Amino acid sequence: MPEHAAVLFANDAFYLAFASRDLAAMDEVWARETPVTCIHPGWGPLTGRDAVMESWQAILAGPSAPNIACQNAEARVLGDIACVICHEVLDQGFLVATNIFVRERGQWKIIHHQAGAAPPPETEAEPPDTMQ
Amino acid sequence: MPEHAAVLFANDAFYLAFASRDLAAMDEVWARETPVTCIHPGWGPLTGRDAVMESWQAILAGPSAPNIACQNAEARVLGDIACVICHEVLDQGFLVATNIFVRERGQWKIIHHQAGAAPPPETEAEPPDTMQ
Repeated sequence: MPEHAAVLFANDAFYLAFASRDLAAMDEVWARETPVTCIHPGWGPLTGRDAVMESWQAILAGPSAPNIACQNAEARVLGDIACVICHEVLDQGFLVATNIFVRERGQWKIIHHQAGAAPPPETEAEPPDTMQ
Repeated sequence: MPEHAAVLFANDAFYLAFASRDLAAMDEVWARETPVTCIHPGWGPLTGRDAVMESWQAILAGPSAPNIACQNAEARVLGDIACVICHEVLDQGFLVATNIFVRERGQWKIIHHQAGAAPPPETEAEPPDTMQ
């Protein structure tokens, strides 16, 4: 699989774990050998795998776990690091996210996620070659 | 200069350009050889150097250009890519930012910035060894 597609696949796995409230799958998509951080909307930054996974446990198990879908994901691959920018579609509106991945033992794993409020995405997507 | 310090120096240069409303300095801190993206608070993602610099021109020249300072910056260096997470202190409150840097011709340049609303930072910082 081309790396660009492999990164988008890992990004999809993250949102699938999120949407299905699957904590084990969420644990699987986060890096184990590289320090991780996470910034949920309106939260301060979380540092370290324990703090990040505790936050996901609380979010996925909570009564207000969101219905979420990813749209317009665009990936940049820079060696063993990749960055995905995408919209998150929720019942309440739209967020925009930065997801950073590292290649660990041949697999792309998340090392950072930040999501924040955004207007609805424009219907016409950017040409894909601007993000190659 | 150790790379970790060099990345934080580049991050400081970004905020100095922002705070001093210096468009030429802002242009200087952004990468030229790597595709760039930017997500201002409440905006959709901007893709490409032209769109990103146009946004900074509008922000820095506008009547509501914010007073801004960076706090609690923590850097991760992963080869030729680095990620800084920091708080942004404004008159109106706090933001938290993800800034991604690439090493271009020996200099760290920004390739992505996302800032979003955050609560005030905790007074006690995380131990620095969690971010090495």
